[in-house]
Amino acid sequence: MRPSKRAPDELRGISLERGVSKHAEGSCLVKFGDTHVLCTASLEDRVPPWLRGGGKGWVTAEYGMLPRSTGDRMRREAAAGKQSGRSLEIQRLIGRSLRAVIDLVALGERQITVDCDVIQADGGTRTAAITGGFVALYDCIAWMKTRNMVGDKVIKDHVAAVSCGIYQGSPVLDLDYAEDSAAETDANFVLTGRGGIVEIQGTAEGTPFSEEEFAALLGLAKTGIGRLVDLQKLTLG
Amino acid sequence: MRPSKRAPDELRGISLERGVSKHAEGSCLVKFGDTHVLCTASLEDRVPPWLRGGGKGWVTAEYGMLPRSTGDRMRREAAAGKQSGRSLEIQRLIGRSLRAVIDLVALGERQITVDCDVIQADGGTRTAAITGGFVALYDCIAWMKTRNMVGDKVIKDHVAAVSCGIYQGSPVLDLDYAEDSAAETDANFVLTGRGGIVEIQGTAEGTPFSEEEFAALLGLAKTGIGRLVDLQKLTLG
Amino acid sequence: MRPSKRAPDELRGISLERGVSKHAEGSCLVKFGDTHVLCTASLEDRVPPWLRGGGKGWVTAEYGMLPRSTGDRMRREAAAGKQSGRSLEIQRLIGRSLRAVIDLVALGERQITVDCDVIQADGGTRTAAITGGFVALYDCIAWMKTRNMVGDKVIKDHVAAVSCGIYQGSPVLDLDYAEDSAAETDANFVLTGRGGIVEIQGTAEGTPFSEEEFAALLGLAKTGIGRLVDLQKLTLG
Amino acid sequence: MRPSKRAPDELRGISLERGVSKHAEGSCLVKFGDTHVLCTASLEDRVPPWLRGGGKGWVTAEYGMLPRSTGDRMRREAAAGKQSGRSLEIQRLIGRSLRAVIDLVALGERQITVDCDVIQADGGTRTAAITGGFVALYDCIAWMKTRNMVGDKVIKDHVAAVSCGIYQGSPVLDLDYAEDSAAETDANFVLTGRGGIVEIQGTAEGTPFSEEEFAALLGLAKTGIGRLVDLQKLTLG
Amino acid sequence: MRPSKRAPDELRGISLERGVSKHAEGSCLVKFGDTHVLCTASLEDRVPPWLRGGGKGWVTAEYGMLPRSTGDRMRREAAAGKQSGRSLEIQRLIGRSLRAVIDLVALGERQITVDCDVIQADGGTRTAAITGGFVALYDCIAWMKTRNMVGDKVIKDHVAAVSCGIYQGSPVLDLDYAEDSAAETDANFVLTGRGGIVEIQGTAEGTPFSEEEFAALLGLAKTGIGRLVDLQKLTLG
Amino acid sequence: MRPSKRAPDELRGISLERGVSKHAEGSCLVKFGDTHVLCTASLEDRVPPWLRGGGKGWVTAEYGMLPRSTGDRMRREAAAGKQSGRSLEIQRLIGRSLRAVIDLVALGERQITVDCDVIQADGGTRTAAITGGFVALYDCIAWMKTRNMVGDKVIKDHVAAVSCGIYQGSPVLDLDYAEDSAAETDANFVLTGRGGIVEIQGTAEGTPFSEEEFAALLGLAKTGIGRLVDLQKLTLG
Repeated sequence: MRPSKRAPDELRGISLERGVSKHAEGSCLVKFGDTHVLCTASLEDRVPPWLRGGGKGWVTAEYGMLPRSTGDRMRREAAAGKQSGRSLEIQRLIGRSLRAVIDLVALGERQITVDCDVIQADGGTRTAAITGGFVALYDCIAWMKTRNMVGDKVIKDHVAAVSCGIYQGSPVLDLDYAEDSAAETDANFVLTGRGGIVEIQGTAEGTPFSEEEFAALLGLAKTGIGRLVDLQKLTLG
Repeated sequence: MRPSKRAPDELRGISLERGVSKHAEGSCLVKFGDTHVLCTASLEDRVPPWLRGGGKGWVTAEYGMLPRSTGDRMRREAAAGKQSGRSLEIQRLIGRSLRAVIDLVALGERQITVDCDVIQADGGTRTAAITGGFVALYDCIAWMKTRNMVGDKVIKDHVAAVSCGIYQGSPVLDLDYAEDSAAETDANFVLTGRGGIVEIQGTAEGTPFSEEEFAALLGLAKTGIGRLVDLQKLTLG
Repeated sequence: MRPSKRAPDELRGISLERGVSKHAEGSCLVKFGDTHVLCTASLEDRVPPWLRGGGKGWVTAEYGMLPRSTGDRMRREAAAGKQSGRSLEIQRLIGRSLRAVIDLVALGERQITVDCDVIQADGGTRTAAITGGFVALYDCIAWMKTRNMVGDKVIKDHVAAVSCGIYQGSPVLDLDYAEDSAAETDANFVLTGRGGIVEIQGTAEGTPFSEEEFAALLGLAKTGIGRLVDLQKLTLG
Repeated sequence: MRPSKRAPDELRGISLERGVSKHAEGSCLVKFGDTHVLCTASLEDRVPPWLRGGGKGWVTAEYGMLPRSTGDRMRREAAAGKQSGRSLEIQRLIGRSLRAVIDLVALGERQITVDCDVIQADGGTRTAAITGGFVALYDCIAWMKTRNMVGDKVIKDHVAAVSCGIYQGSPVLDLDYAEDSAAETDANFVLTGRGGIVEIQGTAEGTPFSEEEFAALLGLAKTGIGRLVDLQKLTLG
Repeated sequence: MRPSKRAPDELRGISLERGVSKHAEGSCLVKFGDTHVLCTASLEDRVPPWLRGGGKGWVTAEYGMLPRSTGDRMRREAAAGKQSGRSLEIQRLIGRSLRAVIDLVALGERQITVDCDVIQADGGTRTAAITGGFVALYDCIAWMKTRNMVGDKVIKDHVAAVSCGIYQGSPVLDLDYAEDSAAETDANFVLTGRGGIVEIQGTAEGTPFSEEEFAALLGLAKTGIGRLVDLQKLTLG
Repeated sequence: MRPSKRAPDELRGISLERGVSKHAEGSCLVKFGDTHVLCTASLEDRVPPWLRGGGKGWVTAEYGMLPRSTGDRMRREAAAGKQSGRSLEIQRLIGRSLRAVIDLVALGERQITVDCDVIQADGGTRTAAITGGFVALYDCIAWMKTRNMVGDKVIKDHVAAVSCGIYQGSPVLDLDYAEDSAAETDANFVLTGRGGIVEIQGTAEGTPFSEEEFAALLGLAKTGIGRLVDLQKLTLG
């Protein structure tokens, strides 16, 4: 029995709320249960130095947690003077995941930065960020389309993410913090709408895991991400 | 006529929403119109080094803006590697303002950190942060009271803040961003529930201002803060 | 009775010594009693990025304290790796105060940086820095005038500053360190030669203060700054 | 045909040279073809703060690249003032991988830091670092055993790592830089000597990959890591 | 002919002014011509961690330049976020030089920090800092003696420093900035009152120099430092 | 008797191995006994800002130590967030020493960066770095010559370095760590192939030293550097 009382293949209550920011070109407040992440997409007219003049655009992401998004207050990264290794690792993952479904040439020589700020954390912040970040990014590109800045082919597919793990010997979907802390194995999956794999990250917290266990996790992930993509489609109309 | 169409002594729509954080001992999402600040109060069992062993507690504040809380995306302070001078100045102001109504001896040797994170900015973020930060702090101390950690005398008074300015020659209350950008003079006032002055900060953006103009601003502030304190009382029951 | 034995409206011994730097375009060693601040004005031929090409100049300030300018040695900010929040706040105040009396268009697309370095501290370093910084700035612009770089209209007025406070219940002018440490309320005023208000910063250290007390402080400040401006005029000939 | 002319399941020439450091308690210069990583294990008598007094030890890793280990000189991280996100991500991976085969209680309250410094890079530095880092760690623990500091049960299994990828449509083992730059998919696998999975990281560089492709990569990894573990055993005698 | 019109073995006008700081236990404003350095000695009751409990004291130094001490304004090191390599190198030299004449055991487990801040620079700031720093240190130890904190044997000898160089083919003493910029060779010498050598640093700016040239520089340095030590004795009474 | 059993004027076993880096334009692994330094020379097509457009090139150096190159593990400078004062001082010395034998005009508007990374330390790392860095630099310029980027006159002379010291009262050549730690006086000499002096740095660790002692050290250095230059010539063919 999971602490959350959910069935092994049951997602938490998911919500995707668009247009939550007065200023951003695209935005989404994503909730995976008690995990709440505010995603905003900001369009800038210049690309990083290494892309200048190549006619190609860029999509990048930044990730942060509010100091009291967690059970114990964390030190503010701006006060500490640097982003933690964990934050850097997560924002690199979000950026790669979003770029996987974008045609950077069709985007043109512009950059979209997707900021994912965790308002409240209860496990799975990176997967919520990817899932909601896609919605913010989608709306930013829609904003560009209505201004004739881009055509129809910028977005190649949907992308969403979920975590799975082995909890007390059984594979379960979408771990909350209590489950994540006690899981033997923790894996994050990023898949496209058509089922292609974009990223897989699996980690044995204690005992190494087997190929069969990993296959079970991937199976759960496919189910869960299928539902997340359905929800994205519903939300985006 | 103000861009916001408000009367000179009219506040924006104000809302104070308590208990918005699953984790924090006290929290408040404060809205002054389109300015939204999430305030959380976190209790820690240790005080800064210079207070250790003195039997006195401490209240401090930290302030940050989400990168796309503003019209143009700002650089993330954690990525820049430091808090800006503006952020440091504002969080010092918030901390002083909140300490002004707390009996630090009655608090006991503990620290409360009030984090004020701007979710969306439209002028007056620091005054909203003080007004909402007080509510978060109040609830944190109530949380302590129900656990018999403190008595009844920790909070000495209410405290709230508002900005005023000279806009096109006329004194106006509670400037939004459009008004603030065009104002000749900008002043922030922090007052207690009983009308005592805690902080005054007045700045001439262009032409210096006169004693009479300043008196008019202070008059507006007293009116506005009176209403904010009433709202705090209503909210806190 | 004040620890300094001064009358409530009595300034410390003030001295403004011009031309103390072999290299700077303008300089002033200002003394408010035992508070000594070296102010230098440095002309540079380029403005900050956000002003480039606009035909407007800029005046900015930087502030620092020598490690043993104080009773206990402070950590060197360069060794600590950053300026403190207090230093940043003070240098922002000095810069705003000096800009208030400068016609930035008449200055032309150039920047003047006024460095204010505290050689010895005994309270009131920021107000001494503004008062002496104006002299350094004045001489820098005079230096430019003799080279036909600017016309006569760059400086619009004098500017000076002083602190006032409530000490043992009575309003007093120009607090030294002993008085400042014990004051209930501490306020800094920046006024122009014609009496316009440029900046007001008032802070209740313990008990909030009343409108009447604040008016008394402002009254003292007007007297004191009047004398400081007279001394500036005398010094500048 | 691979640029390296190797068969799809062929490793590069691998060498593990023990005892290369005069000072370290354990050391290994590992070569995967032209990728050369110097691994040293350093024993310290204290654990990180969060473990103190718990009777448990810790194994951690740090990773760096010499500035000209790469084709173009990279900026020295010490001069840049911080480790890159990539470095932090890799050293976290190495640390987790090595801890997976260590009984931290049997280690006792001590820390071993495994430094992995890339002398020359040609793809696969992180997998070489894990494979060689294990040898350095093993020798460090052997050093402790000869001094009766620990018993026989500290090391629970071997651990090694390899990268695999889809190159021009075919799954290949142990990518060098030329192959890695052109691969559609890149995955790193960390497995134990008994075949348990410790870490999986798979990334689609362009097109998402399928479950079948991923299974093929995992198959190659098992073969390759089997050989690496054999070589570790041979080296360690 | 030197630009300064001085004879080859002629020092600039030297002045050593004691007791210039209200707060420091010892202080000296040293002038070598237009090079002015404020030296303060600060006593602290604790030593660096690696000396704790050993009954030995420590003398250290910190060095900084005011931003407009130089012909062109330099960036403030506190704003840049770090001390330059040059500053670090100079302060290490000053610290070593002063320690060479102090009996650290006789000092007892305390630290004296000598801050050397360049108010105005015209070449030779490091040698002026050592010469004046010794005076500040001497007075700090005298301050301790009058409080019976130390005995008579803390200071073992005088120490002073001077620069020499080859200017247009001739060896000259005590280079000012104009001479230093054009010198082929620049050397700094630190000697004790009894003529022992503490530090020698010689650098060929362009052409390497010969053993004979170096001997000539050392000869000049002995003459110059002899006079500086005489002046220290005169000043210290 | 020296701990190393060497004669007073005997160098450690010296080895200079060229071409050790697959990527660098020039490289040398230099060994002075157990001190091993990897030197690479990297050619870049741009010079520092202050040289741009002047037709002159630049040679610079960077220095680092691997964390466990020493007896006790040192903190990684990239993790500490800055290079130590010692590292900065040493890399400035290496850069000056190498520039002394290069015709920067003949080099053309390009920069060569010589990275000196200490793989294993046993005293004398800076002198080994200069001696080996010259070989790497020489090969980099040879690489340029074969591509007709420069002519024959870029290198004006050889340059090498050695340390000497007074150990138990006697002058000795090329100190290892054990000797260096116990030496009363430590001096580093950088000389050219024709015997010109480029740099001299002598430091009394305890008792000041005499002119005669210094002359003895210089004598030893001339002998030792003569042999090092012979070895450079032999190596470079």
